Amino acid sequence: MDGCVFCKIANGSSPSHKIFEDKNTIAFLDIFPCAIGHTLVITKKHYKNMEDVPPQELAEAIKTVQLVGKACMKALGAPGFNVHQSNNKPAGQVVFHLHFHVVPRFENDGVSFKWQVSEKAKEQIPLVKEKMMKVLWKIFNKNQ
Amino acid sequence: MDGCVFCKIANGSSPSHKIFEDKNTIAFLDIFPCAIGHTLVITKKHYKNMEDVPPQELAEAIKTVQLVGKACMKALGAPGFNVHQSNNKPAGQVVFHLHFHVVPRFENDGVSFKWQVSEKAKEQIPLVKEKMMKVLWKIFNKNQ
Repeated sequence: MDGCVFCKIANGSSPSHKIFEDKNTIAFLDIFPCAIGHTLVITKKHYKNMEDVPPQELAEAIKTVQLVGKACMKALGAPGFNVHQSNNKPAGQVVFHLHFHVVPRFENDGVSFKWQVSEKAKEQIPLVKEKMMKVLWKIFNKNQ
Repeated sequence: MDGCVFCKIANGSSPSHKIFEDKNTIAFLDIFPCAIGHTLVITKKHYKNMEDVPPQELAEAIKTVQLVGKACMKALGAPGFNVHQSNNKPAGQVVFHLHFHVVPRFENDGVSFKWQVSEKAKEQIPLVKEKMMKVLWKIFNKNQ
């Protein structure tokens, strides 16, 4: 897509610290890393996020995420890693081209993805359960 | 696996707020939600995390994640969602059965996954790039 920075990286018209590429995906080091080895995995084709990516291409992307995660453990000696992904602005998405963050983690590295438990959300579980089930099965059946 | 709380949920011997199930995966509401609709997606089979899950089963899991994400937007009116996944203790993994968090997001909801840019990590990009590339292609070629 014109003007999309990740499309430019995917087609090679913008430079990147590319570390891996296969038929459908590319992995490159984040230039604003929160940890050593912080990597982005993207689809080569432009999709905004999980809302519009075809499931099969999403599946290819997560396989590359797994590969990068395993590689950061082996190459950098990281004892773990996080995978993080954002859909739309309220979720913190900044570049609107589907991407996964792979963040190598080390003991006491100061990186934190901790969250607070919401009492309001707890109370709403029974109501949410009903609402979610209805819609989930509707979408699932439509996809079959 | 004996004693694994998510295996018990998967085989029905422990109760859960299950909202979806297909051949390989289950989705249920997190009982310690950070947001309304906070959901966990797991494989039915026991895998510790992305280190040992076969790529094809991982692909099935991410498809269910996508389904749940779309459903939370439709069912709860969430304008976005995050996907978060942890591998091993230093990454914050607490239950050692592969799971993805799907966190519906709303404007000004107080949930934050923001991180700090690490200058040390920035400096190490060229070195990390070389190390990662070597290992990535080694693993990739071994898998072919």
